[in-house]
Amino acid sequence: MGEAAHPADQQIVTAGFVVIGDEILSGRTKDRNIGYLADFLTAHGIDLAEVRIVPDETDRIVEAVRALSERYTHVFTSGGIGPTHDDITADAVAAAFGVGIDFHPEAVALLSARYGNADLTQARMRMARIPDTASLIPNSVSQAPGFKIRNVHVLAGVPSVFEAMLEALGPTLAHGTVVLSRAIDAHLPEGRVADDLRRIQNAHAGVAIGSYPQYDGKTFTTQLVIRSRDAALLDRVAAEIENALTRLRAQA
Amino acid sequence: MGEAAHPADQQIVTAGFVVIGDEILSGRTKDRNIGYLADFLTAHGIDLAEVRIVPDETDRIVEAVRALSERYTHVFTSGGIGPTHDDITADAVAAAFGVGIDFHPEAVALLSARYGNADLTQARMRMARIPDTASLIPNSVSQAPGFKIRNVHVLAGVPSVFEAMLEALGPTLAHGTVVLSRAIDAHLPEGRVADDLRRIQNAHAGVAIGSYPQYDGKTFTTQLVIRSRDAALLDRVAAEIENALTRLRAQA
Repeated sequence: MGEAAHPADQQIVTAGFVVIGDEILSGRTKDRNIGYLADFLTAHGIDLAEVRIVPDETDRIVEAVRALSERYTHVFTSGGIGPTHDDITADAVAAAFGVGIDFHPEAVALLSARYGNADLTQARMRMARIPDTASLIPNSVSQAPGFKIRNVHVLAGVPSVFEAMLEALGPTLAHGTVVLSRAIDAHLPEGRVADDLRRIQNAHAGVAIGSYPQYDGKTFTTQLVIRSRDAALLDRVAAEIENALTRLRAQA
Repeated sequence: MGEAAHPADQQIVTAGFVVIGDEILSGRTKDRNIGYLADFLTAHGIDLAEVRIVPDETDRIVEAVRALSERYTHVFTSGGIGPTHDDITADAVAAAFGVGIDFHPEAVALLSARYGNADLTQARMRMARIPDTASLIPNSVSQAPGFKIRNVHVLAGVPSVFEAMLEALGPTLAHGTVVLSRAIDAHLPEGRVADDLRRIQNAHAGVAIGSYPQYDGKTFTTQLVIRSRDAALLDRVAAEIENALTRLRAQA
């Protein structure tokens, strides 16, 4: 729906998301974290601007983390921070920023407390390897922490743990002005509303009108979504659209 | 799980996917096409190697389409080919390849047949604008076609239409050797199986062992997924893993 104009008193904060997971790319696991993060960020006034899903390969993780870290206020990653051989995210993120990686005393303490010394295997100790200069992100579900380095937040892939880490992060994140949105069911197909929508969109910077066709197997209808950081503008544009729809429905 | 070795008689065919949609990034719509495409490609022996979700902005679509088109055998896009002002995918893809865009006679004929001349509004006619040199992809649901240019397949975002276009494309795509996979429930947490998995993975090129923790709110268990294009190798590695798990469970 294009880039809306941003008055100076509105704070724009952006985010990118790197999903690390062969299992998502093969289809075996259906991702649930993208939609969750999108809702979470929208509620916090942060614009999710790009998502990349990459395989469990160091070079691909390094490339995606670097690219998104340069572009966006915040970056989040999911997956690849467990104890097994395919968990390579911490090493890849360290490589992306050219820093070392070593056992982090706080992380070792968290894992010792969880497993006790008898069950703290060498494999589990891998989860205490954290890139230099990173700070830990708490994990209220299973203790093994995530971490933050520069603007990159490295979270677990298991949805309940991902969500718990995000919850812990919430208050620490730079937030922007929340984007307000209004949904309107057009009760008409897109082709009937398109000309009026274009005219209304062109007349109003600072608002973005999205048009989403829906198909129930028989009929196409349209959900319109108006988004703006300016409540009064949102109301004005919503009223214009409602007027246009009333006129169009009378013609139908 | 890293890149497995590929014997010369195995055909590797790759794909990238660009999801175009502000509504996915805002969380308002939860994507269903990524998982569907992943399953479809896996069944056809095509490795989905990367997914990018980008907003409805020309520059971002151009960048993603170019990057993935250079890297992978096939590229697919979803979204942004309807009649409204926010449908900019066709223009963006034309720009990505530096070609013109114009009304495509076959596409005009399809839309005329669907809507009749009275209902074929200027907005709907936009759906017949196709980049030069592109060929059409049939849409058995609502006629407005997708298109293919070079290695990029431009599909609708509405899931039922996306799936119908993909079905139509299936027989035309270059396929590779199908990756076989075997899932094994470890009935043990990752930390207990990690050392044996690493040893077995290191001993076998040509197979990729993935380890996926699952959490039911109380206990962590692990699903192991073995993937290979070589059936005999898959059997051998699965047997080695089963033996190791039997031994580990006896110790538990």
